[in-house]
Amino acid sequence: MSAIDDLAAELSKLPGIGRKTALRLTYHLLKQPPEQSRRLASTLASLVERIRRCSVCSNLTEEDPCPICSDRRRDKSILCVVEESADIGAIERAGEFRGVYHVLGGRLSPLDGVGPEDLTVSELLARVQNAAVQEVILATNPSLEGEATALYVQRQLAGKVPMITRIARGLPVGGDLEYADGVTIAQALSARRAM
Amino acid sequence: MSAIDDLAAELSKLPGIGRKTALRLTYHLLKQPPEQSRRLASTLASLVERIRRCSVCSNLTEEDPCPICSDRRRDKSILCVVEESADIGAIERAGEFRGVYHVLGGRLSPLDGVGPEDLTVSELLARVQNAAVQEVILATNPSLEGEATALYVQRQLAGKVPMITRIARGLPVGGDLEYADGVTIAQALSARRAM
Repeated sequence: MSAIDDLAAELSKLPGIGRKTALRLTYHLLKQPPEQSRRLASTLASLVERIRRCSVCSNLTEEDPCPICSDRRRDKSILCVVEESADIGAIERAGEFRGVYHVLGGRLSPLDGVGPEDLTVSELLARVQNAAVQEVILATNPSLEGEATALYVQRQLAGKVPMITRIARGLPVGGDLEYADGVTIAQALSARRAM
Repeated sequence: MSAIDDLAAELSKLPGIGRKTALRLTYHLLKQPPEQSRRLASTLASLVERIRRCSVCSNLTEEDPCPICSDRRRDKSILCVVEESADIGAIERAGEFRGVYHVLGGRLSPLDGVGPEDLTVSELLARVQNAAVQEVILATNPSLEGEATALYVQRQLAGKVPMITRIARGLPVGGDLEYADGVTIAQALSARRAM
């Protein structure tokens, strides 16, 4: 039954999915109508083909520039810096922010070998120098690495932007922005302070 | 970002995967090398194409008859009746059983609209009448529906097979055979009683 084992092996590489869960999912996929599993496979395959990085903000997108960067109603003078694209989704769901974003593509983490050159900091600097950005909000995660990343980006931007702010620690320290609820994110955004 | 939402929607149809987990998995798939996600997609697609039911025992298989039915070293005179293919995997991992299987394809469950005609009971009867089966072990789950199914199958087989046994209630009652550990399954098999 190697097709079953093959899929279970692939599934168990995903985060939070162990060997037994992978097998359970595989058997579930075999029990449901084949169109259902085919649709999942093709959606998954097309994801990788259709999604790329926005050339402006590095957000994951199907169109370049991404829908947020090309939205005329968004305030281009306020730039919200996040670690990952998933964080944009979380902030958008909060419905509080009307500016645009910049995705760093990670956080500084010497232990994982992630240095400043692995993040889109130079792109951020170029963006800030070429456009009339009034404020940069640093919305990296309230974790150790997120704080270090915010501090690093703040130092790079110092003197180049009228205002640099950090989202309020309304988010539980050590938590993950991606999983925060909308109200907490909205509060953290509105209570942002100059740094 | 509809390709992302599309995949998250497909993933959240899977058992035990909610909206947030689906989004987290989707972003994980985008972060890893594209070959990795392509391989998962193609493994998943080929699963549905490659797997069918064994014409002898109804096990999910890539070849017909399945590797167990076509294995000359297996004892064809002992037939172990299970609800699902996944249960065969669990019993095989226990390494105790050397007979062959019969997959019912579910359990009797009036509430879910599953009656005897939805299970492979007539195939089981035909099998028992055409081959020299000495013993049928009823290894349906030790749940309410599993017990009812075992009783129903036992009544259908009565007088047609020299011996009908039921796996011992060494398995935790209300539990699921698919997730039991090998030792418990081995014990339940060896302590089987005539019914």
